Amino acid sequence: MRETAQNTMMHGELALFAEGDVISTMLMPKEDGRRRVVIEGLSPEVDAGRFPAKRTVGDLVRVEADIFTDGHDAVSAALLYRHEGSQEWSETPMIFLVNDRWFGEFRVLDLGRYFFKVAGWVDHFETWRRDLHKRIQADSDTTVDYLMGAEILSHIARQTKPDDAGWLKARLDILKSKEAAKEDKRKVATDALLNEIIRRYPDREFASESERVLELVVDPVRGRFSAWYELFPRSTAPVAGQHGTFADCEARLPYIAEMGFDIVYLPPIHPIGTQFRKGRNNSTVAEAGDVGSPWAIGAAEGGHKSIHPELGTMEDFERLVKRTADFGMQIALDIAFQAAPDHPYVKNHEEWFRKRPDGTIQYAENPPKKYQDIYPFDFESSKWWAMWQELKDVFLFWIGHGVRIFRVDNPHTKAFPFWEWCITEIKRDYPETLFLSEAFTRPKVMYRLAKLGFSQSYTYFPWRNAKWEITSYLTELTKTSVREFFRPSQWPNTPDILTEFLQSGMRSAFMIRLLLAATLGASYGIYGPAFELMEWQPIQPGKEEYLNSEKYEVRSWDLNRPDSLRFLIALVNQIRRSNEALQTDWGLEFHPVDNEQLICYSKQSGDGANLVLMVVNLDPHNTQSGFVDLRLDLLNISYDTPYQVHDLLTDATYTWTGPRNYVSLNPHSIPAHIFRVR
Amino acid sequence: MRETAQNTMMHGELALFAEGDVISTMLMPKEDGRRRVVIEGLSPEVDAGRFPAKRTVGDLVRVEADIFTDGHDAVSAALLYRHEGSQEWSETPMIFLVNDRWFGEFRVLDLGRYFFKVAGWVDHFETWRRDLHKRIQADSDTTVDYLMGAEILSHIARQTKPDDAGWLKARLDILKSKEAAKEDKRKVATDALLNEIIRRYPDREFASESERVLELVVDPVRGRFSAWYELFPRSTAPVAGQHGTFADCEARLPYIAEMGFDIVYLPPIHPIGTQFRKGRNNSTVAEAGDVGSPWAIGAAEGGHKSIHPELGTMEDFERLVKRTADFGMQIALDIAFQAAPDHPYVKNHEEWFRKRPDGTIQYAENPPKKYQDIYPFDFESSKWWAMWQELKDVFLFWIGHGVRIFRVDNPHTKAFPFWEWCITEIKRDYPETLFLSEAFTRPKVMYRLAKLGFSQSYTYFPWRNAKWEITSYLTELTKTSVREFFRPSQWPNTPDILTEFLQSGMRSAFMIRLLLAATLGASYGIYGPAFELMEWQPIQPGKEEYLNSEKYEVRSWDLNRPDSLRFLIALVNQIRRSNEALQTDWGLEFHPVDNEQLICYSKQSGDGANLVLMVVNLDPHNTQSGFVDLRLDLLNISYDTPYQVHDLLTDATYTWTGPRNYVSLNPHSIPAHIFRVR
Repeated sequence: MRETAQNTMMHGELALFAEGDVISTMLMPKEDGRRRVVIEGLSPEVDAGRFPAKRTVGDLVRVEADIFTDGHDAVSAALLYRHEGSQEWSETPMIFLVNDRWFGEFRVLDLGRYFFKVAGWVDHFETWRRDLHKRIQADSDTTVDYLMGAEILSHIARQTKPDDAGWLKARLDILKSKEAAKEDKRKVATDALLNEIIRRYPDREFASESERVLELVVDPVRGRFSAWYELFPRSTAPVAGQHGTFADCEARLPYIAEMGFDIVYLPPIHPIGTQFRKGRNNSTVAEAGDVGSPWAIGAAEGGHKSIHPELGTMEDFERLVKRTADFGMQIALDIAFQAAPDHPYVKNHEEWFRKRPDGTIQYAENPPKKYQDIYPFDFESSKWWAMWQELKDVFLFWIGHGVRIFRVDNPHTKAFPFWEWCITEIKRDYPETLFLSEAFTRPKVMYRLAKLGFSQSYTYFPWRNAKWEITSYLTELTKTSVREFFRPSQWPNTPDILTEFLQSGMRSAFMIRLLLAATLGASYGIYGPAFELMEWQPIQPGKEEYLNSEKYEVRSWDLNRPDSLRFLIALVNQIRRSNEALQTDWGLEFHPVDNEQLICYSKQSGDGANLVLMVVNLDPHNTQSGFVDLRLDLLNISYDTPYQVHDLLTDATYTWTGPRNYVSLNPHSIPAHIFRVR
Repeated sequence: MRETAQNTMMHGELALFAEGDVISTMLMPKEDGRRRVVIEGLSPEVDAGRFPAKRTVGDLVRVEADIFTDGHDAVSAALLYRHEGSQEWSETPMIFLVNDRWFGEFRVLDLGRYFFKVAGWVDHFETWRRDLHKRIQADSDTTVDYLMGAEILSHIARQTKPDDAGWLKARLDILKSKEAAKEDKRKVATDALLNEIIRRYPDREFASESERVLELVVDPVRGRFSAWYELFPRSTAPVAGQHGTFADCEARLPYIAEMGFDIVYLPPIHPIGTQFRKGRNNSTVAEAGDVGSPWAIGAAEGGHKSIHPELGTMEDFERLVKRTADFGMQIALDIAFQAAPDHPYVKNHEEWFRKRPDGTIQYAENPPKKYQDIYPFDFESSKWWAMWQELKDVFLFWIGHGVRIFRVDNPHTKAFPFWEWCITEIKRDYPETLFLSEAFTRPKVMYRLAKLGFSQSYTYFPWRNAKWEITSYLTELTKTSVREFFRPSQWPNTPDILTEFLQSGMRSAFMIRLLLAATLGASYGIYGPAFELMEWQPIQPGKEEYLNSEKYEVRSWDLNRPDSLRFLIALVNQIRRSNEALQTDWGLEFHPVDNEQLICYSKQSGDGANLVLMVVNLDPHNTQSGFVDLRLDLLNISYDTPYQVHDLLTDATYTWTGPRNYVSLNPHSIPAHIFRVR
């Protein structure tokens, strides 16, 4: 808490200062007043440096800052950066852009935290060189200038390496010499090599540094680019009605890998509570044989560190993790911090839950709705610190068994300080760990969780269907400062979300939402096999719950149904893998189309080498046609040279010229173009 | 410098922590983990609290913040504030707006610095009350709810005043009672008075506070609302060719006061250097009798703390200051930190200037241009600290002689840290002091000076003539965060700036620029009598310097010329004084007109009670007509009720209905409407 930030920053100790006869009791500035360069407006910066910005391994980080000084002197600046594992700052020069804005770049090659700051200083040599040049141009008298140059050089010569010292000395002598011809002095002074050598010894005595050291968290590439596939392990048995096992999941891996997914995400795999167990279709009374919801965690067999006995053993699980890795994929576990009434925590750590005056434990509620099968943790418990450690230990337990990706259930119903502490602690030792935030809630809450450390976040994408909605939401996510900390994961469905759009049951509707998710989001996911098999029936009209939801029962899926979307999904994921442009959210640009049912957008890789152009028909019923009006300047395409667009979905190739081009998409064949532009 | 901001903020000491048998060496959070409320996104905030925002005495300060907690619990929040002169925080509740945004307000009644912060906490009583209400509505069982209420009340009862304690106890007993009827419990629980009393004792045990305490600088009202009149004292003599005196200035005061100005600003009044003195029209050689530039400060007679002998004595000056105050106006002095070669500083403090290798002192330069009559101070002098004190002492000297407003010449050529220190030091003791920054330079430099403490700043207004230029520039100044620290002072001319627009010499052109300046800027100024007498001849075509500029010679003005703009100026200033809307820059809104030569904008006072609508013809040559299309919703005018617009310039009154209304302005009569809207 800075009570008087301003004063602390500006004033040092009360100084008794004698100047002539006067003794002053003024506050003396803390900093040397000769530090004349101002550095402000740094980016990337999240909440003034309160939180780190996010990057992934291999990224080129572009840092910008406003850097200037008083008067007309020339300024030089450097970007300093270091990985948390090193005490040494690396350095790269910053380059002037425009309007006092400078930039510098460095590549992050290691996982974990990086620190960076900017230094700027008045460059007396450069000022002299620049002014001398102007004087020579204007034919002014330069006698004193050469002497001033000599003064600057001799100041610098004191710190040069021996190699350079002799070379400099010779030049110095000429500049100082009363006999040397002016033309010789001019040659010495304007020699490019002199400039190059002097740049090696910048005089930073009065250099300023940016007021804060800023931070980056560098994640694995999958933090930025990932395709998720969610499935219920218990619904993977080869025989209908049987409870699936981890071994069955193993057998499913080739199917998932063929579709091109990176992450296999499993809902909670722990023992399921029996008290107040939910029956099929969320009925409050379970019947015999009902398996309950995996999110009602904990029973006599154990809690968050145990495995549901019907799924298999810890060895089975570790084998599944390993086999998944063999396919180049990773297992993601669902961590849901809540307890069924028969969870061992309830007995052993009653103090972590809220007691009601009648002696019962407070179950989850959203009045008047009651969720008696679930006890929330009490983050105001007097034993919060022990509870925090145990909850963190749940992650560490599964990290110990090979898991590095966690999908966190409802993080917004747990105290925010816990997440910042927990994720920071875990990533300090396991910087390769990723956390997906499942917080379908208000925007500022979702953004706060991302700032606190969540690597990816679910979004409002499931409910953004119209062109204007998609455009404004994706612009917010990818073109504002939000992108520095919030990485969207775009899902067309989840076990909780069967959108109205998909309830039409039309194949075209599923294709549209898949194509949008996979091309708008560098990270996206589907809940399968419900998605590829186009499961569309809601529990009742107007609800987004699935009928016969897997959340409450074991399902069996006919994966080989001829209408399955699995081959389209495989094609889309293959296109994502071979086009760098689709592996980042940052290169997204929308382009006008004169038909509200057609949306057009492009994605470009950071280096601009890969350019992909999407046109999607948002209407699942009808063929829609129109003219796109491409913003060619953003795409580095000239207005009069023809360019080729190659549809990666259909393999058709067109030659276009200029911004206006005709498109027509029949949703019943395929509702989108994914053009590679050349 | 925060090396690892994140870690410092998040972690406390390494704690040896024993939970059960396990001894942990984890870093323990510094804050109690039960502080569950997040407070972020505070406004007003300048550079994350690095600089104070600006307000004027009497302002109602509106503070906003994003405030929320995890889960579904109700949140309450308060705004805390204090004047620097008090250690006690005052407090006012914050009110929920929308989307997790809250606001609170307080009025600043004293000059100087204010501090403010926000506190937020989970409100268990309100959560209970809200949930109980829902349960009653849904006819759910409320037995336990009343017991929970009793628990919360008994917790609060511990800290109540005796008056409330008994009252509460009686209610508590009913809620706890096993015998009391449910209906009685319901009545007690939902009693509005209960809510009111409980609100007096918020349970803030786990309240969060905003991470920074933010600051405001509160200036006199003239910091926000002021009309400046600049004149050269030496040109005020009643007899042409004679050197004017402070006594002559006194005689000029009624003329200035009648025009309605607030501030009489004098260029430097110090002795003028003789070495390298500039002649008329900036000639490099002065002739006998040439008076030189007032900005070439210092001669044998003294420097920045002395008065030019021909202007009068210190007593004369003090009398002028006093007489000006009698007219309700204030004197502003020009402080130009630079020295003529014969300034006493040059002899007595050679170390404050830069020595060149040939032993001479470095004069001002912008190569290849040389200003040999001026020596800049060297802010990299090893004696910078003594120099800073002396420069500050120049301000204090004139404060000692009654001056409280300073126009600072070229502050951007002096080191930035000096200004922050100097202005903060002076305003600590003299918070009524105002500083106008004369930095016609790059935008980020101008903004930095304002952040450092300058109360007002010159702007690019002189060169903004077209509708789109005026609209975009004024929007930047009045609708973005810039307005929190940068207060524009709009000048149509200065002794250095005779714009191309005014060089037409047309009366209409001068009227247009006056009307724009005085209605777009709550603060504005003119350099007179050159302005009201429409002085228009440049020293040469394409230059903005005046021919026969007062900067280099004594001029005599015929103030009674019949074409003088003095009566229009008086009318405009009177309109400004009687319309609060014109006294702030914040209530500005632009409205479309279907003619690019007509600009339309409105201004509203903070409370909305005063509404003024301007239409200006930007074309000095021709009558321009068109339809304005008012954004009536912004003006709180209904679309179908007639409203009256009363032209305060011509006294004409029109009745308008709806947004579209016809206007026609002949620049040769008067090129604007200033409508009071009722």
